Amino acid sequence: MARPTPLSGFPEWLPDGRVVEQHVLDVLRRTFELHGFAGIETRAVEPLDQLLRKGETSKEVYVLRRLHEDPDAAPERSGQLGLHFDLTVPFARYVLENAGHLAFPFRRYQIQKVWRGERPQDGRFREFVQADIDVVGAGALPYHYEVELPLVMADALGALADLGVPPVRILVNNRKVAEGFYRGLGLDDVEAVLRGIDKLDKVGPEAVADLLVAEAGATPAQAAACLELAAVHGSDASVVDRVRELADRHGASTELLEEGLLELGALVTAAAERAPGVLVADLKIARGLDYYTGSVYETVLVGHEDLGSICSGGRYDTLASDGATTYPGVGLSIGVSRLVSRLLSAGLVRATRSVPTAVLVAVTSEEGRSRSDAVAAALRARGVPVEVAPSAAKFGKQIRHADRRGIPYVWFVGDADQDGAPGQDQVKDIRSGEQVPADPATWTPPEQDLWPRVVAAG
Amino acid sequence: MARPTPLSGFPEWLPDGRVVEQHVLDVLRRTFELHGFAGIETRAVEPLDQLLRKGETSKEVYVLRRLHEDPDAAPERSGQLGLHFDLTVPFARYVLENAGHLAFPFRRYQIQKVWRGERPQDGRFREFVQADIDVVGAGALPYHYEVELPLVMADALGALADLGVPPVRILVNNRKVAEGFYRGLGLDDVEAVLRGIDKLDKVGPEAVADLLVAEAGATPAQAAACLELAAVHGSDASVVDRVRELADRHGASTELLEEGLLELGALVTAAAERAPGVLVADLKIARGLDYYTGSVYETVLVGHEDLGSICSGGRYDTLASDGATTYPGVGLSIGVSRLVSRLLSAGLVRATRSVPTAVLVAVTSEEGRSRSDAVAAALRARGVPVEVAPSAAKFGKQIRHADRRGIPYVWFVGDADQDGAPGQDQVKDIRSGEQVPADPATWTPPEQDLWPRVVAAG
Repeated sequence: MARPTPLSGFPEWLPDGRVVEQHVLDVLRRTFELHGFAGIETRAVEPLDQLLRKGETSKEVYVLRRLHEDPDAAPERSGQLGLHFDLTVPFARYVLENAGHLAFPFRRYQIQKVWRGERPQDGRFREFVQADIDVVGAGALPYHYEVELPLVMADALGALADLGVPPVRILVNNRKVAEGFYRGLGLDDVEAVLRGIDKLDKVGPEAVADLLVAEAGATPAQAAACLELAAVHGSDASVVDRVRELADRHGASTELLEEGLLELGALVTAAAERAPGVLVADLKIARGLDYYTGSVYETVLVGHEDLGSICSGGRYDTLASDGATTYPGVGLSIGVSRLVSRLLSAGLVRATRSVPTAVLVAVTSEEGRSRSDAVAAALRARGVPVEVAPSAAKFGKQIRHADRRGIPYVWFVGDADQDGAPGQDQVKDIRSGEQVPADPATWTPPEQDLWPRVVAAG
Repeated sequence: MARPTPLSGFPEWLPDGRVVEQHVLDVLRRTFELHGFAGIETRAVEPLDQLLRKGETSKEVYVLRRLHEDPDAAPERSGQLGLHFDLTVPFARYVLENAGHLAFPFRRYQIQKVWRGERPQDGRFREFVQADIDVVGAGALPYHYEVELPLVMADALGALADLGVPPVRILVNNRKVAEGFYRGLGLDDVEAVLRGIDKLDKVGPEAVADLLVAEAGATPAQAAACLELAAVHGSDASVVDRVRELADRHGASTELLEEGLLELGALVTAAAERAPGVLVADLKIARGLDYYTGSVYETVLVGHEDLGSICSGGRYDTLASDGATTYPGVGLSIGVSRLVSRLLSAGLVRATRSVPTAVLVAVTSEEGRSRSDAVAAALRARGVPVEVAPSAAKFGKQIRHADRRGIPYVWFVGDADQDGAPGQDQVKDIRSGEQVPADPATWTPPEQDLWPRVVAAG
C-alpha cells in the first residue's frame, strides 16, 4: 500500500492537534452542562425527505446506499438515507419522536460531526464538528431565552480564552426589527430584502442597492433606507434610539418594529451587564435561513474576521410541529472544526505535549519489567498518567523516548539489594535534569505537568 | 410533520440514557489516558477500495454519493467513498499517512461511530460506537504489549463496575498455539480449521467435527484432536501444561506451538497477578479475521454471555505496510453501543438524573429575573451546574419543574428590603423538603448531588 494522501475537506489532526480539539470540546461541554443543558446524540443519518425539507441545502447532502443493495429490491421501509448536514434537523426530529418523554422547555447540547458535499475551502469542510445548544418549548417559548443563549455561548467561548483562543464578538440582530422596518417602508418581499442585505459584506452597498431595486421591488430611496438600517451597530441601548429615529424619518415605524426593538434593547442591556464588550447589535446581520423569526446571531473571532462566523443561530418559531403541538426554539451552533483549524493553522495555541503520559517508567531488564509495571499501576491508581518503556534499552535511549513525546518525567526503579529488599526509586525531570528519590505511593508531579494543557503559542 | 418513528439499527438514547453512555465513555477515556494512550479521531469516510481490502465485510459497507453529483462527471480524484465499518482500517491508513510525524511504538485510543449495513439484531446495530486501543510499532513490536493491552481493557471495564456494570471475563488464545498444533497434526489449511472451530458455540462439537473433515481435510481423529484442544481453558499456567500433554499425545508438538505456549503462559501468569479472575485462557477462541497472528481476545459480560463479545481484538503482524516499513500492532475494541444498550435495556444501571442541573434558581417576578441570573452565575463560577426557572410561575409549579427533571435543589432569591438591601436567599432540598438560608458565594451541594451519577439500578 502506497502512502495515502489526505482527502480534501475531511480534516484530521495529529495527536497534538487532537489534544487542542479535545480541550476545546471539553471546555464547551463543561460550560453547557454548568448552564443545565443535557447532552444528546442523534444518529448520523436521516431520511432523505426530511433532509430536503429546507431546499437550500439539498445539493450538499451525502446519500447512502449499501454496497450490495439489490437495485430491484423494494426500498427500505424508512426510505433513502442521507448524512445530516447540521444538528438542527435531527434535533427537530428527535424532539417530535420523543416529545412524550422530554420535559419542556428542553435544554440540550449536541456535539457531533456533520457532512456537506460542498467545495472545500479555508475553514469550510465536508466533514466537521458542530457544538449546538438549543432551548425548545412546547407551544410557547419566552423571549428571555433569546437573551440567555448567546450569553451561554459568550461564556463558553470566553472560557476558551484561557487556552489562548482570541476574544470573540457576537453580532446580534432581530428579524422583527428588519421585517417591521421593511414593511413600514412599503417593502413586502422581506425575504428578498434580507437576501440582498446578507450580501453586504461580500459585494458592498452599491451592489446591494442595485439588488434591492432589481429583486426586492425597492425604489432607490427605499434601498437607501434599508442600507441606512444595516449600517446601525453598537453595544448599548442607544442603537435602539438610532433605529427609532431612522424609522421616524422614513415613516417606517410599525408595531412589529417596536416589538423587535424592545427585544433587541433588552438583549443589549443584559449583555452589557453580563458579558461586557462581547455582544454587539449589528443591524446588517441577516442570516440566510428563512426560518428565523426573532433574534439572529453571528460570531467573529477578533482579528480573524476573514474566517466568517464561528457561532451562528437564532430564534425560530417552528422548529418542528406534529400537528397538535408546535415547538419554538432558540439556538446557536459553534463551528468547532472551523475554529480549531484556525487555532492550529495560525499557530495560536499549542498543546504542552502530544501524549497524556506524564511519567515514563524505565525498564532495567525485560526480566524486571513487572516491577516497572507495578510502579506504573501504583502511580495510575492515584491519577497519574503513566506508560512503561517499550524495551530495556540503555537509559539514554529510554529518556529520548520520553523526550520525543514531551513526557516530562522518567522513573527509574531502584535495584533490589542482595536480600531482595526493594531499592530506592528515582524520578528525573528530563527538562531540568533534576533527579530525586521518589516513592510511587506518594509522589505526584506538579499540577501543571499532570495532564497535557493547551496554552497560547509563542 | 407526523411523529417520526425510530430507524431500526440506529440506536438513540433519551437524555438519561445518554448520561449513562457519556459516563461509560468518560471512564474509558480516562483509563486509556492514564495508560498513556493518545486520543485521535479519523474522518468517517475512507476510499472504497481501502474498505474492501478485507473482502469479508464488503457487503456491509455504506457507499456515499452527493445528491446532485453529475453521474457523467469524472469520478472524484479520491475515488468513491464509503463509511468506515471499524476503526482499524482508518487507523492503519492514518499511521501510513502520518508515519513521519508519529513516534513509534505509537499508543492510541479512538472512540467513534462506525457503520455497517447489516441486518439489525439485539446488540447488533447499523450505527454504533466503538472504543479502540492499539499499540503499533514500526518494523517490530515486542510481545509484552500482547500482555499489556488486554490488562488495560480489564482495567477500563473494571472501572465501570463502580457504575453497576457486571464483571467481565476476557478470553484469550494464541494463534501460534492453534496453528502450531494443527500443523503438528498434519493439518495445513489452518484457516479452514479456524473457521470451523469459530462455529463451535453456534453449532456444537459434532457439527464442527463434520466441518473439519469436509472443509479442512481432517481425518476424524485429527478433528477430534482439534476439538480436544478447543476444550482446554483455565486461568492459570496449568493450561499450558495441558496443551503440551495433548500435543505430546497426538504427536503434534512444533516449534510454533511451543512459542505460542510460552506467550500464552506469560499472559496468563501476568494477568493472574494484575487482574485476578478476569482473564481466562480459552483455546476455542478463533476470531474470524485472518489477519491475527498471535494473541486473540474476546470478552463476555458475566451473566450476559448471550450478548456475544463486547471487547475483541488481537495481534496482527501487518496492520499496514508502505513497502519500506511494516507496522505490526496489537489492539482491542469495545462495542460501546452493544454494552450500553444492554445496560439500559436490562435495567442494570440508571442515571441519578437526566439533566446536569443541580440547582434550579426560582424566579419571583420577570422584573426580578436578572437577580436570579446573578445567583446562577455566582454558583456556576464555583462549578455548580445551575439553570434559572423558565417563568415566574407559582413556586409550587417551579418546584415541580425541578422535580420532573430530578433537579435536587431549588433556590429562592430573598426579597430586597425597602432600602434595596438584598434579602436572605434560601435553598430547598426538594427530596427532603428541608430549606435553609444560603449564600451563592459559598453554598455548595453535597458531592453526590453535584453532577448526575450512574449507579446500579434496583
